[in-house]
Amino acid sequence: MTGARPLARRGLMFILSSPSGAGKTTIAHRLLAADGEIRPSVSATTRPPRPGEVDGEDYHFVSDEEFDRMVADHEFYEWAHVFGNRYGTPKAHIRADLKEGVDFLFDIDWQGAQQLRQKDNQDVVSVFLLPPSIEELGRRLRSRGTDSDAVIGARMARAQDEISHWDGYDYVVVNDDIDACFTTVREILEAERIKRMRQTGLIDFVRDLMKPVNL
Amino acid sequence: MTGARPLARRGLMFILSSPSGAGKTTIAHRLLAADGEIRPSVSATTRPPRPGEVDGEDYHFVSDEEFDRMVADHEFYEWAHVFGNRYGTPKAHIRADLKEGVDFLFDIDWQGAQQLRQKDNQDVVSVFLLPPSIEELGRRLRSRGTDSDAVIGARMARAQDEISHWDGYDYVVVNDDIDACFTTVREILEAERIKRMRQTGLIDFVRDLMKPVNL
Repeated sequence: MTGARPLARRGLMFILSSPSGAGKTTIAHRLLAADGEIRPSVSATTRPPRPGEVDGEDYHFVSDEEFDRMVADHEFYEWAHVFGNRYGTPKAHIRADLKEGVDFLFDIDWQGAQQLRQKDNQDVVSVFLLPPSIEELGRRLRSRGTDSDAVIGARMARAQDEISHWDGYDYVVVNDDIDACFTTVREILEAERIKRMRQTGLIDFVRDLMKPVNL
Repeated sequence: MTGARPLARRGLMFILSSPSGAGKTTIAHRLLAADGEIRPSVSATTRPPRPGEVDGEDYHFVSDEEFDRMVADHEFYEWAHVFGNRYGTPKAHIRADLKEGVDFLFDIDWQGAQQLRQKDNQDVVSVFLLPPSIEELGRRLRSRGTDSDAVIGARMARAQDEISHWDGYDYVVVNDDIDACFTTVREILEAERIKRMRQTGLIDFVRDLMKPVNL
């Protein structure tokens, strides 16, 4: 899986979205473990830390006032309300690191993806994972615990709402086998890295190829 | 290298270009041998067959009059004069096979690539291979035989002219290791196949995912 990429390049913002139960979290964890050039994007949130969560690693935990200020100062790529708290993707660090060739993984839903695509289009690559069938998705949502049919039904409705936004993504992968799905996601990442427009080192490299040479 | 691609998809026109000596022919042969979904595009030519060449396999050998007629009837994606003969890519078969998910490999130079990109933009994916250095390219061009310095010099000038068109391609791969280069080219092909816009089967597949389900 290691191709030919010796030149300096610009990093990319790699979005992975899927309905709950389609394997996004598993793929994201495997990708971060296997690939040394991609990092998770760390969100800022007004939600209080849960036991074990580390500030700056799981989230940047900020006050409501600080979040207000960051919104006012345009310090977010995107932000949203979720269950009474606010979550956002801060631009700080990401922009500078993209220039250095660091990639960022965004494990976000269609709304976050939509906002991100509109703001930094050239750097964004978006991948949507689909379950192999709606029956299989139902089984996966049910097997998670002892929730009531009503709760599972609400989850299914939410999953189908997420699925309905598949057509805004660059790539769509059907996850009927987690290993094959992971391979495909890595191929997408590797291919995107080698795109001409991301390889900032090409101009100098080609200038060197064009010099007169003694044969 | 086998990812998750179960759905019907549209084929793509995969262009591989490089200066002579940068490995294009080797990569093209390996790709055709390893991948069952891609076929070589067979050119039509007015040049007479050489010993061993098979009509319809190496080239479609046609008369000058037939070539004239094909040009007049817009039956080529692109065509060009090369050393007094004409070569062209006939549209026949390719269009129908693209709909069936067959990919075509085009081993062509920058001028052919330029024409092809302008005519069938959505289906075209173009990859340019670069040598690791101009000195290495010189060595490769020299090691091919016992040609005079003048002949080698002319080849080098031609190679540098080809290199100067690198910036029209979607992907650029530096070939300093043939295996790594081949891996990267396959990753590009696999990623492009999984692009949402090529997967014609997605609309029906998602319609099925959106149906009401008994939990």
